[in-house]
Amino acid sequence: MAIEGKTTDKANTRIRLGMVGGGSGAFIGGVHRMAARLDNRFDLVAGALSSTPEKSLASGRELGLAPERCYGSFEEMAEKEALREDGIEAVAIVTPNHVHYPAAKAFLERGIHVICDKPLTSNLEDAKKLKDVADKADALFILTHNYTGYPMVRHARELVETGALGNIRLVQMEYPQDWLAEPLEQTGAKQAVWRTDPAQSGVGGSTGDIGTHAYNLGCFISGLEADELAADVHTFVEGRRLDDNAHVMLRFKPKDGKQPAKGLLWCSQVAVGHENGLKVRVYGDKAGIEWTQADPNYLWFTKLGEPKQLITRGGAGAGAAAARVTRIPSGHPEGYLEAFATIYTEAAHAIEARRTGSELDKAVTYPTVDDGVKGVAFVTACIESGKKNGGWVKL
Amino acid sequence: MAIEGKTTDKANTRIRLGMVGGGSGAFIGGVHRMAARLDNRFDLVAGALSSTPEKSLASGRELGLAPERCYGSFEEMAEKEALREDGIEAVAIVTPNHVHYPAAKAFLERGIHVICDKPLTSNLEDAKKLKDVADKADALFILTHNYTGYPMVRHARELVETGALGNIRLVQMEYPQDWLAEPLEQTGAKQAVWRTDPAQSGVGGSTGDIGTHAYNLGCFISGLEADELAADVHTFVEGRRLDDNAHVMLRFKPKDGKQPAKGLLWCSQVAVGHENGLKVRVYGDKAGIEWTQADPNYLWFTKLGEPKQLITRGGAGAGAAAARVTRIPSGHPEGYLEAFATIYTEAAHAIEARRTGSELDKAVTYPTVDDGVKGVAFVTACIESGKKNGGWVKL
Amino acid sequence: MAIEGKTTDKANTRIRLGMVGGGSGAFIGGVHRMAARLDNRFDLVAGALSSTPEKSLASGRELGLAPERCYGSFEEMAEKEALREDGIEAVAIVTPNHVHYPAAKAFLERGIHVICDKPLTSNLEDAKKLKDVADKADALFILTHNYTGYPMVRHARELVETGALGNIRLVQMEYPQDWLAEPLEQTGAKQAVWRTDPAQSGVGGSTGDIGTHAYNLGCFISGLEADELAADVHTFVEGRRLDDNAHVMLRFKPKDGKQPAKGLLWCSQVAVGHENGLKVRVYGDKAGIEWTQADPNYLWFTKLGEPKQLITRGGAGAGAAAARVTRIPSGHPEGYLEAFATIYTEAAHAIEARRTGSELDKAVTYPTVDDGVKGVAFVTACIESGKKNGGWVKL
Amino acid sequence: MAIEGKTTDKANTRIRLGMVGGGSGAFIGGVHRMAARLDNRFDLVAGALSSTPEKSLASGRELGLAPERCYGSFEEMAEKEALREDGIEAVAIVTPNHVHYPAAKAFLERGIHVICDKPLTSNLEDAKKLKDVADKADALFILTHNYTGYPMVRHARELVETGALGNIRLVQMEYPQDWLAEPLEQTGAKQAVWRTDPAQSGVGGSTGDIGTHAYNLGCFISGLEADELAADVHTFVEGRRLDDNAHVMLRFKPKDGKQPAKGLLWCSQVAVGHENGLKVRVYGDKAGIEWTQADPNYLWFTKLGEPKQLITRGGAGAGAAAARVTRIPSGHPEGYLEAFATIYTEAAHAIEARRTGSELDKAVTYPTVDDGVKGVAFVTACIESGKKNGGWVKL
Repeated sequence: MAIEGKTTDKANTRIRLGMVGGGSGAFIGGVHRMAARLDNRFDLVAGALSSTPEKSLASGRELGLAPERCYGSFEEMAEKEALREDGIEAVAIVTPNHVHYPAAKAFLERGIHVICDKPLTSNLEDAKKLKDVADKADALFILTHNYTGYPMVRHARELVETGALGNIRLVQMEYPQDWLAEPLEQTGAKQAVWRTDPAQSGVGGSTGDIGTHAYNLGCFISGLEADELAADVHTFVEGRRLDDNAHVMLRFKPKDGKQPAKGLLWCSQVAVGHENGLKVRVYGDKAGIEWTQADPNYLWFTKLGEPKQLITRGGAGAGAAAARVTRIPSGHPEGYLEAFATIYTEAAHAIEARRTGSELDKAVTYPTVDDGVKGVAFVTACIESGKKNGGWVKL
Repeated sequence: MAIEGKTTDKANTRIRLGMVGGGSGAFIGGVHRMAARLDNRFDLVAGALSSTPEKSLASGRELGLAPERCYGSFEEMAEKEALREDGIEAVAIVTPNHVHYPAAKAFLERGIHVICDKPLTSNLEDAKKLKDVADKADALFILTHNYTGYPMVRHARELVETGALGNIRLVQMEYPQDWLAEPLEQTGAKQAVWRTDPAQSGVGGSTGDIGTHAYNLGCFISGLEADELAADVHTFVEGRRLDDNAHVMLRFKPKDGKQPAKGLLWCSQVAVGHENGLKVRVYGDKAGIEWTQADPNYLWFTKLGEPKQLITRGGAGAGAAAARVTRIPSGHPEGYLEAFATIYTEAAHAIEARRTGSELDKAVTYPTVDDGVKGVAFVTACIESGKKNGGWVKL
Repeated sequence: MAIEGKTTDKANTRIRLGMVGGGSGAFIGGVHRMAARLDNRFDLVAGALSSTPEKSLASGRELGLAPERCYGSFEEMAEKEALREDGIEAVAIVTPNHVHYPAAKAFLERGIHVICDKPLTSNLEDAKKLKDVADKADALFILTHNYTGYPMVRHARELVETGALGNIRLVQMEYPQDWLAEPLEQTGAKQAVWRTDPAQSGVGGSTGDIGTHAYNLGCFISGLEADELAADVHTFVEGRRLDDNAHVMLRFKPKDGKQPAKGLLWCSQVAVGHENGLKVRVYGDKAGIEWTQADPNYLWFTKLGEPKQLITRGGAGAGAAAARVTRIPSGHPEGYLEAFATIYTEAAHAIEARRTGSELDKAVTYPTVDDGVKGVAFVTACIESGKKNGGWVKL
Repeated sequence: MAIEGKTTDKANTRIRLGMVGGGSGAFIGGVHRMAARLDNRFDLVAGALSSTPEKSLASGRELGLAPERCYGSFEEMAEKEALREDGIEAVAIVTPNHVHYPAAKAFLERGIHVICDKPLTSNLEDAKKLKDVADKADALFILTHNYTGYPMVRHARELVETGALGNIRLVQMEYPQDWLAEPLEQTGAKQAVWRTDPAQSGVGGSTGDIGTHAYNLGCFISGLEADELAADVHTFVEGRRLDDNAHVMLRFKPKDGKQPAKGLLWCSQVAVGHENGLKVRVYGDKAGIEWTQADPNYLWFTKLGEPKQLITRGGAGAGAAAARVTRIPSGHPEGYLEAFATIYTEAAHAIEARRTGSELDKAVTYPTVDDGVKGVAFVTACIESGKKNGGWVKL
């Protein structure tokens, strides 16, 4: 039925959360906070919101944090919070990429769960080191590949898993944007500056910022992993130091003895007319699906020889995996923040299971440090292939 | 620029909120709570979540309320909270329609702000009495016509206000659904039972539940008010006690000496294939616009003799009114909960201005008790016209 | 299979065709000629293309007609062609509305088949007289309600006929345009001048020009006929002599003892942003459908409780009725001219059956003089209801 | 204005046309005939419609050809028609690919204009030989890359030419289908059999059948030509002898000293859910455009920093190049046959100019033998790159 809702908020088990980065002027910090709040499973109680102590304090005050829990650095926060009886149980890391590794390490090693923005790190070496730390830590690591939280993405994955598509042949991914069609970083715009700076962003520009999202989502839905890729990586805007467009051909690893799938991936920050044009299409020998991030409540599903179906979030045809993460009835659109909130809520399920020593529901799904390593490996391989004039590079 | 965000959460000024209705199994209660939470301007601290004290307590515990603030009735809550130093400053009323009036009265008369679900009341008499109470009260009354919180709805209204459409000629509204295409209420489904019960819902079925939304939105965008209407109101499902479909012709009041506009409104709960198909189209002599709730981040805007424009939330062409209520960059869709949250945040602005004695920003916009009275008058006129075989009825 | 085509052209049985109206500068004449030509079932051999003999001759020459078969009037053409051994077998009448009746009469009474533009006539009296003539004539009368030629319209009708929608509850029709949003007729634009002139166009403006199309199509698809209507008919543009907008509530005649359906119809020539926005939606108790003329190769079809299906012309799910009138594979769009050509080809089937004395395939479907009378009755009822301030008028 | 039409038919100058291939059961032959007929510029008077004389005669009779002009082979037709006073002036070649070269040669060398289906030939050697023949011949050669006939494709090209997009950076092409997702050729289906047979189709499967269309269209719109490509060419269906999917990365030749553009091309016959999903997107530093064959009357056009525009065929914003090939007003869709007919009509303009010795209007545009050679070179390069494991191949 279309109109019954459900109560997902359980405030009595809220998790104490800290945040690194995300002070005023940041974009993604506010997103993380709204996401953490939506289902009422987290309480933001501490922050190293800026690398300048005064700014951190000012931002913290605005957010209602106690002044003594507004720290000037993540190191200080990790140390002091670990000593408090009521210290944070989890931390959200929402800094530029190069800070992810040291910050995550500081908290994981103190047994504090980490919810970290993507890409995992700014280079593959850090990524592998972070994986080591995470694997050894007595804490969880959750990567916010937020698009995996969309209900219809979950449904797409379920369709693949349950065999509705048959053997997967093709995974086509694209993520075009246009906000860097001009040299915006030269105007000092904060988001553009750090995202085009190798020191902060890492080896990849568009590949790291959005290509990695598209790749992650293609893999998440298809259940596949790339074996090798060939990439034509390019910078269109003069003076830019990182790529702003990439064309990537992919060959996936065979699965279950089937013929391996192939794929295409296009990411661009100079494709005029696109805002966040993330789209994933997967084709098997029995059916095909198509999902577009800008219209996330719809999933096109076509069985070979049958009419196209437009499956809607909460509507007929949407299965259990989508229903688990659906908040409101069909026809009332959920958006980006809801999908992001689902990552937080999945994290909360996992943290709570740890807390209570209970078994985690197998349906709980979130991106892990392994997904993060794969993402950085993807970016690294793109750049390497680009340097080899598009030769194939193994992942 | 596409990617800069803004921090809207200001936890240090959170408003203490209570809730009437919205216990487990309810749909709209959870929606109100998520909406109240998103921008971090409210703290839910008390509730009369069910008319059964045990249920109210159980639901309250799940939501993290102190047991002594889980009340068995709204009367008790109003009385006791009014006496507490830390009593609620505002209350959300999310019950079936017939409870709106007595509950709102109980709180308003104690100076507690009311955020109330629509339609205002179950009949016009109550609506007028509630208006009297609200007008005299030392407290605000906010009606959650939540669709007015969508950024592109705000933009549509701004386009009309600034004259981009010229003189308005036509306002076409529709809100088709299909969830009552069969006699669902006979299965005992809670949402269907009360919405088709005259004692709880009032005189209107589809007209009250969704027609009033469409009418409110058409008026909100166009800045017009109906003068008279002629309605063909019908119940298709056998045994149903309220209307499930209505066709309404409208004539609007002239404004600024211009030729009066005309309109059509269709609401239906039996239109198979529609989930929440709310759509408003407004045509002036210079331009036309079209907005659809299921795809809320888009607004079609066509100037006479020019190509159609698809304006996107956060994108080029979206003006100041939309920007005020936009949380995240273009291309990352916001949805129903965000629009609902905007009503709460507008309420928070107004409540905070009261609290601090400061002047309220003129841009703050929320539906009032007057809008509520107009909505109930619309429903009443539809039913009256229906009884007169579609004759014209003045509003 | 997607790619097999079929040969529909059978030149060896071409029908000799004449044309009344449609000289240079006309819009619809050229359309009729392309439509007649597409499937190669007609040969244009004579014409009274203009009421000025010189213009008729000039236009005829351009079209390759023999000079002696370019006539100065339809009377002359009817008379002389009837006497020729190789005289025309059929005539296309593409004049302003007021000429339809006398011209059709002249040919029908001489046993020449008539293919006539809609609306049937400029008033109901003529319509009834024309019906009398047609009923008595030894010739066929085909009305070019061309939208009934679209394959997906045929499929929609078939879905209704075969019961896929269950009992029909609602028929929603709209046909908004914007080309008369300003007083174009005052600039002398030919198409605007005659269409807003009561002497040439008849009693209805938008109601006659496009409302009648929408009404015809709603009836064609649903298999229903209106019993009564209530209309708010209006002229927005100052100085215009015919309506340019109408809102119409409809009640259909009961069929097969079922509860009668209801409907809404909106036609407008001042709805800025619409080109030819003809849309028909039909809802039964089992399923709903939606078809839009601007995107004619698609039909939305939703069964209650199942995902929406997008059925495509030539694709899976399209049935026999659509296949009969489909020329090319799915995914290669057919358009307006193809649908128009289908009316001509259906006419050819009927004419050929007459010629050869063979039985006509029951699947052959074209609008008749009866449909034409109903259309003019619809327009007349709209105008009458408008004069009665929207009171109900029986059809 | 929306509704004025124009007369394009000029029967008095009709060109005598023959056809090679296209007997009953063929798909594309019927399409060519409808296309030739639509604007009334051709008269089909002779045919070698099948390689079996009896079938050729039977098909010819059905089409109204004189029996003596129904030939058993193209050689016979070329020879005999060349000798007739009233012999054909042009011939349409609609056979499988391997016949294109010898048939075209036979007619071109006799001064008969050739209108030939694509791809030009089944291999590059033949393509070059055909170019030699065509260059020397006293006759025109027109290749039916029919998609170039769509008005909005013409408009897209005009936007690029006039600089509205700025410097072109990206050309993204795709043409997915699903009709060969299973081994249809093993069922004996005629269209599938020859298209998957190297002897009839040539070196390319999906690359030749549809990839070449996508490539041609990308070049036509962008005004660019590929310099080199890297392709991952694959056959998914077991036992199939030609490719059914290809991923291609392209680098275009620099133009006017600008930074060279890059591109992606995907063609597939196994992408379940696609009928004829041809789409071209071109991005410059000032604007981007998107066109989809299934919805051909629309062109998305976005200038950097401005709202998206949806330009419609015949509507505001469509320029002179589109208007030249537009038959009917906006909002009344034209389709595939109309675009195909435009190729024929452009051919007629060119043939008529030859006939009369007059200068050809510079606006006349049709694909030539050079475009054909480029298409076959593209297919050949794809296959070669595929064999080199996706290494770059110069065109």
